[in-house]
Amino acid sequence: MAETVHVREVGLRDGLQLVSTILTTEQKLEWCRRAADAGIREIEVTSFVPATVVPQFVDAEAVAQGAIAIGGCTPTALVPNLKGAQRALSLAIPKINYVVSASEDHNLANVRRTTRESVEDFARIIAARDNQSERRAKVGAGIATSFGCTLAGAVPEARVIGLAADLLALGADEIVIADTVGYADPGAVRRLLTAVLREAGAKPVACHFHDTRGLGLANVTTALDVGIRAFDASLAGLGGCPFAPGASGNVGTEDCIFLFESLGFATGVDIARLLALRRSVEAWLPGERFSGTIARAGLPKTFRPTSIHR
Amino acid sequence: MAETVHVREVGLRDGLQLVSTILTTEQKLEWCRRAADAGIREIEVTSFVPATVVPQFVDAEAVAQGAIAIGGCTPTALVPNLKGAQRALSLAIPKINYVVSASEDHNLANVRRTTRESVEDFARIIAARDNQSERRAKVGAGIATSFGCTLAGAVPEARVIGLAADLLALGADEIVIADTVGYADPGAVRRLLTAVLREAGAKPVACHFHDTRGLGLANVTTALDVGIRAFDASLAGLGGCPFAPGASGNVGTEDCIFLFESLGFATGVDIARLLALRRSVEAWLPGERFSGTIARAGLPKTFRPTSIHR
Repeated sequence: MAETVHVREVGLRDGLQLVSTILTTEQKLEWCRRAADAGIREIEVTSFVPATVVPQFVDAEAVAQGAIAIGGCTPTALVPNLKGAQRALSLAIPKINYVVSASEDHNLANVRRTTRESVEDFARIIAARDNQSERRAKVGAGIATSFGCTLAGAVPEARVIGLAADLLALGADEIVIADTVGYADPGAVRRLLTAVLREAGAKPVACHFHDTRGLGLANVTTALDVGIRAFDASLAGLGGCPFAPGASGNVGTEDCIFLFESLGFATGVDIARLLALRRSVEAWLPGERFSGTIARAGLPKTFRPTSIHR
Repeated sequence: MAETVHVREVGLRDGLQLVSTILTTEQKLEWCRRAADAGIREIEVTSFVPATVVPQFVDAEAVAQGAIAIGGCTPTALVPNLKGAQRALSLAIPKINYVVSASEDHNLANVRRTTRESVEDFARIIAARDNQSERRAKVGAGIATSFGCTLAGAVPEARVIGLAADLLALGADEIVIADTVGYADPGAVRRLLTAVLREAGAKPVACHFHDTRGLGLANVTTALDVGIRAFDASLAGLGGCPFAPGASGNVGTEDCIFLFESLGFATGVDIARLLALRRSVEAWLPGERFSGTIARAGLPKTFRPTSIHR
């Protein structure tokens, strides 16, 4: 029996926040439906930021509700603050994801608060979740700029580990270590993830890598080697960071699936369906930069997926 | 004292064999000179194939002689057969590189001989080298399609290991394991390279990866982890394989240097000089596809090279 690795699609959130086309709610839900149908088990479907900040997410409620109705996968939503969390929780979404930047400068630029204030807000979000009378949502806690920051430069490992400890102590159900600006290398990944896994104990730790400097899949491979079994990825490598100009997007979902299945891990995802979805998304988003190598070069003739598809 | 990793530039050979512009001998020698000046210690400067097969290499003798005269680095040349080896050896080049494909189909397509016939030719090349009265050349033996073949599909590990054993027994000074068509993944790299290193004993083993499916640097990282300390790479990721349509080129020299220096290995190479050279090569080769992420995204603000440059 092959071990499972979870690839969580974040293209609908991280991928869409910087594109120039606003997708319709129907397109977003088709993306969800077809990603779930391809075998993706967790999809970050939207962000509960004010629509004045990111107009792409003006339909956050409708997308979240539609995605919950699809079934067969766990829809999640990014929440930047308590207000966003309250909006998401009121819809009985099964999981929300919160993000704090390890870099003070990045946190100030991103959410106009200090890291400390963001951690305090996280306590209020956990309290709001704990007040849910039924079907309490899971709360993931991401640590952005965990490997360094375009604004502040180096970020000490001890600061990331300390933040993880704080967020876990407050009640985070999962820690997500994010290389928001593409500064990670396999050595830094091995050191930091080993320490964070030790800190997290039984709580799951996931990774979120960007492929800014070509090391995305090398970092994924190293994190997998250290014991990480859940990874964020974005279809066609869409995404980026407004504070990392020139940065390319997230590691590509289809490339991650190819990597894991080649290594003998079962992702449950059918690459052919994912590539068909990618072609639709490319048609919906004219003029955007799509990356990813499997879509360009095709699968090796020798490729045998580990997962068995119906 | 940091451990050394050698990055060998193969852009002048692997990179130039598929481009549409024929560089002048002067441009090729400027490339050599500036790569050596940036700190590259071994450069595959040309290929001794008949000019009727690859017109780019019509000036093989002049390039090899010019490169030998530069000094400060080891110029090498690819030789496809005994005739090519004799041409190269007559110039007192310090090292020649021979290639045999593990895939019979690929070997037939590439040099119109069986793998066995290519191995027999290698014995004659070693004899020719041994007959040199002074400054005997080193002979590297590459094994192409070591991780599979676009024509034949899977290539058994035992066949690659057996070929390595044969080539070493005949007198190879180095084995180069090549993923000619970009089929390798980190799991296959770990298995095969561990076995080949065991087979090679004290003889050096190098790797030659292509980045066809985004796993180039993940494969490099894994090979490094297994103990490989010499890698072929091509400036701006130039290169490909005529029998792997759509394949992108070699792993990029500048991206490899960034990776190794980030991991605490000394390459001796100055990335800034390499990027300046890349800009010249881009101007010399209009219309070609240049890849590589450091040239696009820049170095992280936090990057501190391991090597000390004068």
